[in-house]
Amino acid sequence: MNIRALVKPNVRRLSAYEAKEIPCRVKLDANESPYGFSFFKNIPTNRYPDPEAKELKTTLAKQLKLKSKNILVGNGSDELIYYLVTTFGGAVLYPTPTFSMYGIISKALGEKTIEIPLDPSFDLNMKKILDAIKKHKPKLLFLSSPNNPTGNCFSTERILMLIEKSKGIVVVDEAYQPFSSERGFIPFLKDYKNLLIMRTLSKIGLAALRVGFLIGDEEVINEVNKVRLPFNLNSISQALAVRALKDKKQMRSAISSIVSERERLSKELAEIKGVMAYPSEANFILFKVKNPEKVYAGLLKKGVLIRNMKGVINGCLRVTVGSKKENDIFLRALREVL
Amino acid sequence: MNIRALVKPNVRRLSAYEAKEIPCRVKLDANESPYGFSFFKNIPTNRYPDPEAKELKTTLAKQLKLKSKNILVGNGSDELIYYLVTTFGGAVLYPTPTFSMYGIISKALGEKTIEIPLDPSFDLNMKKILDAIKKHKPKLLFLSSPNNPTGNCFSTERILMLIEKSKGIVVVDEAYQPFSSERGFIPFLKDYKNLLIMRTLSKIGLAALRVGFLIGDEEVINEVNKVRLPFNLNSISQALAVRALKDKKQMRSAISSIVSERERLSKELAEIKGVMAYPSEANFILFKVKNPEKVYAGLLKKGVLIRNMKGVINGCLRVTVGSKKENDIFLRALREVL
Repeated sequence: MNIRALVKPNVRRLSAYEAKEIPCRVKLDANESPYGFSFFKNIPTNRYPDPEAKELKTTLAKQLKLKSKNILVGNGSDELIYYLVTTFGGAVLYPTPTFSMYGIISKALGEKTIEIPLDPSFDLNMKKILDAIKKHKPKLLFLSSPNNPTGNCFSTERILMLIEKSKGIVVVDEAYQPFSSERGFIPFLKDYKNLLIMRTLSKIGLAALRVGFLIGDEEVINEVNKVRLPFNLNSISQALAVRALKDKKQMRSAISSIVSERERLSKELAEIKGVMAYPSEANFILFKVKNPEKVYAGLLKKGVLIRNMKGVINGCLRVTVGSKKENDIFLRALREVL
Repeated sequence: MNIRALVKPNVRRLSAYEAKEIPCRVKLDANESPYGFSFFKNIPTNRYPDPEAKELKTTLAKQLKLKSKNILVGNGSDELIYYLVTTFGGAVLYPTPTFSMYGIISKALGEKTIEIPLDPSFDLNMKKILDAIKKHKPKLLFLSSPNNPTGNCFSTERILMLIEKSKGIVVVDEAYQPFSSERGFIPFLKDYKNLLIMRTLSKIGLAALRVGFLIGDEEVINEVNKVRLPFNLNSISQALAVRALKDKKQMRSAISSIVSERERLSKELAEIKGVMAYPSEANFILFKVKNPEKVYAGLLKKGVLIRNMKGVINGCLRVTVGSKKENDIFLRALREVL
């Protein structure tokens, strides 16, 4: 597949910003202040961040058994979506309902969006998507799997078929993959140059830091890197993300608590009359009730904030899996307001 | 001036992302993890940042005697330039040499750039700029004042004339204003709707945090805010920027040390034979030597890294004002390599 041909002509002509690191004793090249603030022992606040986020990329690459050159780091996945649309442009296709930023960012950047409703089981509607691929030749397909807000993974075979049939880039957004029983698409990277994967630290305890990852073929990563702002990830988020990734024990234990609480929550919801909960591979559960407005408002009155999916999937509410205590408060409140 | 008419049609149609803050006891609406990392006492790492950066904007607004609604916060000024070009597009005009990101970002976003060389005294070449405004009708003018890498402020009268004659937005980038003897353009904001000012914490001890500010009329700020990513500034940078801004004593003392060191450095450079230093209102000094390549390499060999301006202003080098000790090492090394 000719990746360069997919890249917007103005981006094709660019080369990436080169922020060389030149070893020195006295650094007077970057208009930094000589005086920092003593917020941290090991992070000089007066110095620009590492533009290549080397340590963070190395740490993640090791865990994923990939190379640093297969990874681009973003100020959250949101920024990576911005960069993807800037790099490839063209029509942007995604199923609906899904993560809202694919559409919001594409529209902000003036690109055409093609929204294809999911089938009744919340899986990809292949006929409609394949027709749209033929008709609109989208440069970018965004597939959130597990999908937000439906909670399910799309079928692997369908995603693979889209990667094969699409002449564009297919981005599998695996923000919720850590909570899923499926392996995700990293094993398929070696087979498909037009496959990109997004991951994030935002769902696994570090939303405050804004750290997202784009993972893919070196050539594709290099093209997207051309439009990346050189200092897009601040020094503190870089350093703390490394520390958190290395703390595999806490990471795993938090994820497994969330997964087991999700299973319990699903079971309890199934036993509540008037609630129809959908299965979830993510850290949230979508559920249907007769009077969602009343239930949403009633819960909020009891101090429990969940998401009203009005206008996205009518009749539905979405609840994030919290701690055992939070989930208990939610369940009790839900039983009371129903 | 009709601001909306300047905005790209696709952006004009958008509304800003609304991230409402709804008070609650149990927050299960945003797919955050219930478990954070204990890096900070007061910042829950598992929660998304305040999308409105309320405390940071309030703190800055108070210091500048403006309102929060006049301020947009960016992940560094770089990101604000990205947003400005996304919002207004059209031809982008800036003098050269200047900060490289105006051109780099405009090109990444596929916009036409118009580069007008400065006059021999490094001030704005009014005839050429006014001609270019007539011919190309640029939607955006970027004026870095004090200008990087020349170090001077452009004349206030010329900037004001451009704000008046331009039918587009004029962005005065005041990254280096804290080091200048001039007051800057904030006092003129009330007179011109098409004037925007950029400030940053990167030159005053906080480059690691990536915090930039866009300051202007509420209507213009609202338009740019439509293309802003909702969580563009992480929680830690928000919190630390507030703390640093409130520590006015340290801020002022660092700035005044840099300014007095700059004056000393200028004086010493003036006394070195073979060096022609330009006056500076910033935290760096541009200077000319006979053999810049040799001087640059010689300094580096002695461990002193400065910026070689080859290809930007041939024959010139740029040195950042460091601490007294760093400046002494630089001066000694320079005398040795000349």
